[in-house]
Amino acid sequence: MKIAVCAPAGRIDPIVEPRIKALAAITFPQVEIVFHPQCFLQDGHFAGSDAVRAAAFLEFANDPAFDAIWFARGGYGSNRILHDVMPKLGTAAKHKTYLGYSDIGFMLGALYAARIGRPTHGPVCSEINRKDDQGHCAMRALAWLVNGDKASLEPSLDGKRPVAAFNLSILNALIGTHWLPDLTDHVLMIEEVSEPLYRVDRMLFQMAHATQLKGIAGVRLGRITDVIPNTPEFAETPEQMITRWCGEMGVPYLGPADIAHDAANKVVPFGVI
Amino acid sequence: MKIAVCAPAGRIDPIVEPRIKALAAITFPQVEIVFHPQCFLQDGHFAGSDAVRAAAFLEFANDPAFDAIWFARGGYGSNRILHDVMPKLGTAAKHKTYLGYSDIGFMLGALYAARIGRPTHGPVCSEINRKDDQGHCAMRALAWLVNGDKASLEPSLDGKRPVAAFNLSILNALIGTHWLPDLTDHVLMIEEVSEPLYRVDRMLFQMAHATQLKGIAGVRLGRITDVIPNTPEFAETPEQMITRWCGEMGVPYLGPADIAHDAANKVVPFGVI
Repeated sequence: MKIAVCAPAGRIDPIVEPRIKALAAITFPQVEIVFHPQCFLQDGHFAGSDAVRAAAFLEFANDPAFDAIWFARGGYGSNRILHDVMPKLGTAAKHKTYLGYSDIGFMLGALYAARIGRPTHGPVCSEINRKDDQGHCAMRALAWLVNGDKASLEPSLDGKRPVAAFNLSILNALIGTHWLPDLTDHVLMIEEVSEPLYRVDRMLFQMAHATQLKGIAGVRLGRITDVIPNTPEFAETPEQMITRWCGEMGVPYLGPADIAHDAANKVVPFGVI
Repeated sequence: MKIAVCAPAGRIDPIVEPRIKALAAITFPQVEIVFHPQCFLQDGHFAGSDAVRAAAFLEFANDPAFDAIWFARGGYGSNRILHDVMPKLGTAAKHKTYLGYSDIGFMLGALYAARIGRPTHGPVCSEINRKDDQGHCAMRALAWLVNGDKASLEPSLDGKRPVAAFNLSILNALIGTHWLPDLTDHVLMIEEVSEPLYRVDRMLFQMAHATQLKGIAGVRLGRITDVIPNTPEFAETPEQMITRWCGEMGVPYLGPADIAHDAANKVVPFGVI
């Protein structure tokens, strides 16, 4: 099995490559992991210019030698290459798993909208550097990519209802665009990080009123982490907020989801697993 | 002339009322300004509960004795009352000017979508307390409300092309919902405050790719103020960003707009003036 790594948004520290490779060599010696040199470039906010990031993604996605693309990290910027890369994905791109989350939700959403490959929410390579983890999240990602290990999966997945998972900010930025996939009958999982609660509430308003999301089956709430304090304090809890907005949306709140910007973040393959 | 003041989002300091009334008494003695007591309530993040804020707005909007509603301030929360208040607006609501901006853009957008009254972007009452101004922005707002003073208007308004003006975050939160008005053939003015540039760029992506905005005539960029520093530094200027995204949107960038979260913020009546 061959896994390709590229970075459509932010760059990664070069130390990530030997660490990921060392972990893989011990745990999944049959796997070859190839990092695109583009992962380590820096151009302003991004891992190379838009053109360079787009070219690296297309090179790997269109290469039939690779079975999966594991995104290096999120950050910001994968939205900026969508209109360039999406029309250029060929047959080889359709037979791959694409794994990542956060800003990478732009890629996953657009791929799923076009029904290209298997977009999957889950840990990114750079999380091997997490100080609150000892490689478990990278292991979880690899175990899914290599063996389809069900222990990596978000526990509410039932193999019946289709699902999709997004960082709420990224879901919001997709709403109203044609990059947002049709999520009719899907369970929608959301998570958020580093936002004040009033902004989370504002984002939930947009989700609840989005015409494109009218047909979803329900919502599951991942963890809302590193909440930014704001004055006056927001009086509602995330559970109260999601219950309120699901009510206004007319869909059931189905309970928590085991996804987040944290080390415990589980794998959610889009669609039916 | 009678002007009503209510607060669909955040509360205001009670000192705003005597200050606004003193200013009006000197400059426009023929005007009566009525503050709803709801403006001074506090319920968590908001100037009273959703039900209380909705009731205050409906009471004043549906009262034929008032010629205009001047919103007390922005903050966060006017989106939360839209689904309650919009179906309940009657005939008297259709003959009013509605003046405000920032979070109040939710109200202006929904009113314009329903073609109710004259939604107008401009200073809010609470700005009488600005430390960088001596009542000029409140005067500008009053001069427009009372006399239709053209000196208050954003200078690019030509009386021919329809316009609308939004805080970019609020515009983004409306995209994909039915509260976003049809802006076909409109000049769209945007401004932003207290955001890192990568987020401004992400919001411009959504604007540029929003299906609902495909038919706009062009974009004007107000000021992007109090930019939050972010690492790595965003390499593009706001002008570069807006030029890029207008290009991807396929509409002309028409130049700057004299609107912002600052004391110089001008008045922009939605539609053709």
